[in-house]
Amino acid sequence: MTTNETDATDASPTGASAPARAQAPGLSRRGLIGLAAGVGVAGLALGAGAGSAAGVAVGRARAGAAEASVYPFFGAHQAGITTPVQDHLHVASFDMMARTTRDDLIELLQDWTYAAARMSQGLDVSATGAVGGSPDAPPDDTGEALGLAANGLTVTFGFGPTLFETEAGEDRYGIAARRPAVLTPLPAFLGDDLDPLHSGGDLVIQACADDPQVSVHAIRNLSRIAFGRARLRWSQLGFGKTSKTTADQATPRNLFGFKDGTANILADDTAALDTHVWVGQGDDPEWMTGGSYLVARKIAMLIETWDRVRLAEQERITGRDKAHGAPLSGGVETAEPDFAATSATGALAIDKRSHVRLAHPDLNGGIRILRRGYNYVDGNTALGRLDAGLFFLAYQRSPEQFVTLQRALSTDLMSEYVKHIGSGVWAVPPGATAGSYVGAGLFA
Amino acid sequence: MTTNETDATDASPTGASAPARAQAPGLSRRGLIGLAAGVGVAGLALGAGAGSAAGVAVGRARAGAAEASVYPFFGAHQAGITTPVQDHLHVASFDMMARTTRDDLIELLQDWTYAAARMSQGLDVSATGAVGGSPDAPPDDTGEALGLAANGLTVTFGFGPTLFETEAGEDRYGIAARRPAVLTPLPAFLGDDLDPLHSGGDLVIQACADDPQVSVHAIRNLSRIAFGRARLRWSQLGFGKTSKTTADQATPRNLFGFKDGTANILADDTAALDTHVWVGQGDDPEWMTGGSYLVARKIAMLIETWDRVRLAEQERITGRDKAHGAPLSGGVETAEPDFAATSATGALAIDKRSHVRLAHPDLNGGIRILRRGYNYVDGNTALGRLDAGLFFLAYQRSPEQFVTLQRALSTDLMSEYVKHIGSGVWAVPPGATAGSYVGAGLFA
Repeated sequence: MTTNETDATDASPTGASAPARAQAPGLSRRGLIGLAAGVGVAGLALGAGAGSAAGVAVGRARAGAAEASVYPFFGAHQAGITTPVQDHLHVASFDMMARTTRDDLIELLQDWTYAAARMSQGLDVSATGAVGGSPDAPPDDTGEALGLAANGLTVTFGFGPTLFETEAGEDRYGIAARRPAVLTPLPAFLGDDLDPLHSGGDLVIQACADDPQVSVHAIRNLSRIAFGRARLRWSQLGFGKTSKTTADQATPRNLFGFKDGTANILADDTAALDTHVWVGQGDDPEWMTGGSYLVARKIAMLIETWDRVRLAEQERITGRDKAHGAPLSGGVETAEPDFAATSATGALAIDKRSHVRLAHPDLNGGIRILRRGYNYVDGNTALGRLDAGLFFLAYQRSPEQFVTLQRALSTDLMSEYVKHIGSGVWAVPPGATAGSYVGAGLFA
Repeated sequence: MTTNETDATDASPTGASAPARAQAPGLSRRGLIGLAAGVGVAGLALGAGAGSAAGVAVGRARAGAAEASVYPFFGAHQAGITTPVQDHLHVASFDMMARTTRDDLIELLQDWTYAAARMSQGLDVSATGAVGGSPDAPPDDTGEALGLAANGLTVTFGFGPTLFETEAGEDRYGIAARRPAVLTPLPAFLGDDLDPLHSGGDLVIQACADDPQVSVHAIRNLSRIAFGRARLRWSQLGFGKTSKTTADQATPRNLFGFKDGTANILADDTAALDTHVWVGQGDDPEWMTGGSYLVARKIAMLIETWDRVRLAEQERITGRDKAHGAPLSGGVETAEPDFAATSATGALAIDKRSHVRLAHPDLNGGIRILRRGYNYVDGNTALGRLDAGLFFLAYQRSPEQFVTLQRALSTDLMSEYVKHIGSGVWAVPPGATAGSYVGAGLFA
């Protein structure tokens, strides 16, 4: 990232810089000013904006295609949902701190918007950034992304059920009446083994980028900006994405060694997105129009056990062949599974309890979701097994879609090899318009 | 990776395939055969080798320069020491299991050599691999790297002091007399807060690659091959390398936001490597000639505390400026620090207790080490702080070099912001010759 001051509100996705323009007024800068602890840092003032160039230009480290990718932060939808899935994930959940007010929450969202919009464009979190401020103040930006390009960074924000109303029924921010009716804690599912410390949260931030140092930098700095207002509840790094959102991306493999996300909704399938992913005009509440709902599940995989399963059985469980990801009924990877097809022995080619069948839209009233999951490895357990699995992220028009599919998977043959250990659901508001902030509609 | 059978013993670093050649005889295949649990999988037999092509060709996902990088596994030195530092790390430590014999250890090293050599060339762990074996057997390879190129994978093996002799003084494998005299557990250092579960280990494997799915695949499969003989003790993922080994690599930044590894020994500086990194001909023992010693330290960084330190103080602690990494005595990043230079006020430009000064060769009898560290983030603590830091890896001709430098750092101003929580030292034998295995000299 550089500390060059350019406008963060309107950069093209090609990486070209937009004309310099003053930063939109009206955003709180309390968080960053708080960090600078009373020192008069001129560059922090809103509106100091473009051209002030207080910072030092620092060269970019690399200039490959992925590194140069820049996605617009503002727009009808938040970035990071249909954006081509980047290589790395850092997702974090936050809880609002005690005795915070509605204004605190609004200002936090404004500060986060300001910083996220800048970082998405490959800039430091503020105009003075990591090295352009006063030497007598802590830098606004932590600096580890200095010299790195945007690397396709997207930052996506969501609101959990507890933001609207605490478990004790408290309406801390005067927004309980505006809670989407569908935004309730997920029901318990068969086989859940959830760790509350890795579940839920008032707010969630999903940062995806093609360089993990860039996604980590984003979460770290947004966490820092939240100081005194919201506190990190849990966070998770992921790699080796398990889904694709554009047809030209190769289908990645999960840690069971199988292609994953073959039938995902693609970013250019606007009809499917409108039907299955985006909250529509008629949906309640209106402030969520253009938004979506995020479900996250941390799914531990018992990989050592899986690895001792014979190949044919792995394929029976999955319902697809391991080499190419084709359905066991035949054809290529993208072929539609034929659940009536039989093998030479007369048995069904695709097992009735296979993962691909139970999760298929045809058996679930046409329900689809947009997946954006990642593999994770968190070191190993005390028993010497890798602590690894799938960090499942899915966007849908209503959490009911996930609930229906997850219930259908209750008899999934794969259940024996996975354990759901973390969970959460969040309303993901529509994208912010330039000059406004993420979630503004909730407070309008 | 593909399951195409090509020779793994002599590929060029350009990614071009070497002529097919029979696999060297004499390597144990017990580990893989053990995994296949008694099923007669012809391709597993040693010497089945090149050209048998039992597997299914699976296309490569991407063809960028980094993805296509292939480094030779065999040679005078192990790969992964002077190899240009890749983007991702998965390092794992193993303990030999109870009642294992000298032959078990030798066969494990042979099996690891076989699999590591193949994976380094972008191949599955065996000829039948992930999808080319019998459907009635568990696949030899776990499959998550199918379709991925080598991505510059290097796999580097090391032997800990406890491999030679247990803490109780037991010589399990008849090698106690061959232990290098310098290979002893590291002494305690001021401020150590070591977790035994994240320290030590009979054996260590460092896997570096430009795709984390590839380095994770390597450690996972080597761990699997060790089944019944060695068990994972700890493992660690890292990203955003904190050092460079070639002049054309940009100096990366650590999580304090500073450039790290500016003065590292470069791969083409053969004189410095011979002096500081490689065990030489006159050094004892002879079987380590061409090898090196690896020291690993898991260094937690108190980043939230650091982030509240004013810029000038951060720079005083480091002894370098944050923007460019130049010594505070002036000049560019690569300028030699002038520890006698004074500022306008007459004070030393570089503080006496700064990190750069205390670690500098001029103050440590000319001692240098080759660094290969990575940043890490393991989620967060219960207090809502990122659990993050530096996974320090350094290679040297003798562990004494590290000990001297670490002792010199006991008054380092930076000590207030870091905590050493993991530690280990291993003898890294020279590279294996084609047809032999890593560490063969120890058993000769």
